[in-house]
Amino acid sequence: MANTNSTDTDDFNFFHDLSPPDSYETKKDKLNQFANTHVLLRNRIVLVTSGGTTVPLESRTVRFIDNFSIGTRGATSAEYFLKQGYAVIFLHRQRSLLPFYQRVEKNILDILIFSDEDENDIKVSRTHAKKLAPFLKDYQTFKDTGMLCMVEFTTLSDYLYLLRAACEAISVCGNKGMIYLAAAVSDFYIPKGLMPEHKIQSSDGALQLSLEMTPKMLKPLVKDWVPKAFIISFKLETNHEILIEKAKKALATYKHQMVIANLLDTRKKEVYIVTKETEERVQLTEEELAAGREIEQPIIDKLVAYHTDLLLS
Amino acid sequence: MANTNSTDTDDFNFFHDLSPPDSYETKKDKLNQFANTHVLLRNRIVLVTSGGTTVPLESRTVRFIDNFSIGTRGATSAEYFLKQGYAVIFLHRQRSLLPFYQRVEKNILDILIFSDEDENDIKVSRTHAKKLAPFLKDYQTFKDTGMLCMVEFTTLSDYLYLLRAACEAISVCGNKGMIYLAAAVSDFYIPKGLMPEHKIQSSDGALQLSLEMTPKMLKPLVKDWVPKAFIISFKLETNHEILIEKAKKALATYKHQMVIANLLDTRKKEVYIVTKETEERVQLTEEELAAGREIEQPIIDKLVAYHTDLLLS
Repeated sequence: MANTNSTDTDDFNFFHDLSPPDSYETKKDKLNQFANTHVLLRNRIVLVTSGGTTVPLESRTVRFIDNFSIGTRGATSAEYFLKQGYAVIFLHRQRSLLPFYQRVEKNILDILIFSDEDENDIKVSRTHAKKLAPFLKDYQTFKDTGMLCMVEFTTLSDYLYLLRAACEAISVCGNKGMIYLAAAVSDFYIPKGLMPEHKIQSSDGALQLSLEMTPKMLKPLVKDWVPKAFIISFKLETNHEILIEKAKKALATYKHQMVIANLLDTRKKEVYIVTKETEERVQLTEEELAAGREIEQPIIDKLVAYHTDLLLS
Repeated sequence: MANTNSTDTDDFNFFHDLSPPDSYETKKDKLNQFANTHVLLRNRIVLVTSGGTTVPLESRTVRFIDNFSIGTRGATSAEYFLKQGYAVIFLHRQRSLLPFYQRVEKNILDILIFSDEDENDIKVSRTHAKKLAPFLKDYQTFKDTGMLCMVEFTTLSDYLYLLRAACEAISVCGNKGMIYLAAAVSDFYIPKGLMPEHKIQSSDGALQLSLEMTPKMLKPLVKDWVPKAFIISFKLETNHEILIEKAKKALATYKHQMVIANLLDTRKKEVYIVTKETEERVQLTEEELAAGREIEQPIIDKLVAYHTDLLLS
């Protein structure tokens, strides 16, 4: 197209250089069907992205670069969105934490017991059943009412394809849509043409890797894929000095509504909700943390209130 | 020491350049106590390493290089070793598959149901309970009899420290010890001095990474840490042409007893058991695979027979 600017061309080329994920059309249909159902039900809908993306170092992949994230933020946020009545698309890294599932003790075999009477009767031990019951109940409710749609990714390229598909699906919801970009997306990747086919041989000596910057997908996302939605991106840093400045810069560059900025070490008890005009600190006290309160709860409360304001204005 | 050769000095320096894992002394005590108990019980003992190691790209880590492995080989092998009467040290990547735990359906919440009578009574649904029962029974047996010792790692440096500690613990068992190195260990790492402290900034443009070769720990392992044990290393390649040649070369270099060589794409149905003199293909037919037979079963059978021969010779 004559009026395609350079960014769009870059993105276009980027998608062309990558292969779509397995079962891409099936996943796209699932996303569209979910969004179409909930637009008819007049529900608000949120896309929550969660977990890290991988960047393969070889095309038949043995090694890859990964981002630190097991998906706690995304999985926990999805639960609070569901409780606030949102339909949730949960686009997550394979084997990362899942809403409600994450509440099960990691060592599930340690909480299962055989019933005395019957060899094939297995129960959750009484103590753990009590803890697990409310989460299992919530899970069953949201599953039965079709409020949760889960889609998996592994690589950066899977993620980008499915992110675009999910945004395009949600765009039918207009300003009732929300995009909550909690996934830890790699900033760098190795273009396909520069990737060796086979496993890199260690006998070749030291390894030099050259990675290129991942195109900033937030630009076409805000501008083209889902322009009417309420869009929240994340900034994770380790250096406090540059945190707010980087959040403000992202808002100026991509023209979306909100950045949630946090530091690696304190992300479970302190975040900053940053808009073009404002910055608000959300914090949990040591007492609240000890009592099991989760920072995602006040974050989602504030986001929902902000979304309501946007819908009324 | 005057007679320290250059390899030992390299390894020595390597450990000095790295920090030991969290709770290193506690983990070491646990390993020693486990080995000492089983030497008294006259049990054979095997160290199974499993899952991939990470190599941090920043010292306050957001990004890391990882190796493809969820730990199926290690977790499944550990089960068959336990069934053959071995005491098992399972040194595994955090959040990788665990023996017996791996048999639980991933979506555990989908197989749990509330009992009709009582809100806090949660059961495994009948169909799944039947499938799960034999694995839960095995798990409880091996747990109750203290035959399984699980220790976690994440980074390459955690792994190397704990590998040395586990080998040194097993060395008290003499030739009753076996070392089964199924973990996917990174061949490259970034020395601490060359690592940036904070998250690499993507605004700096393309990323150049320079990685150095990880010292070959198999050399001191065979020579110094556990010289009397039966030692099996793994070779995973994507290129069939070089597979057996690389296995033979490893045996010649490190002077251990066996390499299990496999290709990424076919590793679940075909491996080669390679010794200095022999190479034996172990293969499952399509019918066996379809019937749920696992290649780790014939592998472990052969290894146990080989170990018996070594003990009798």
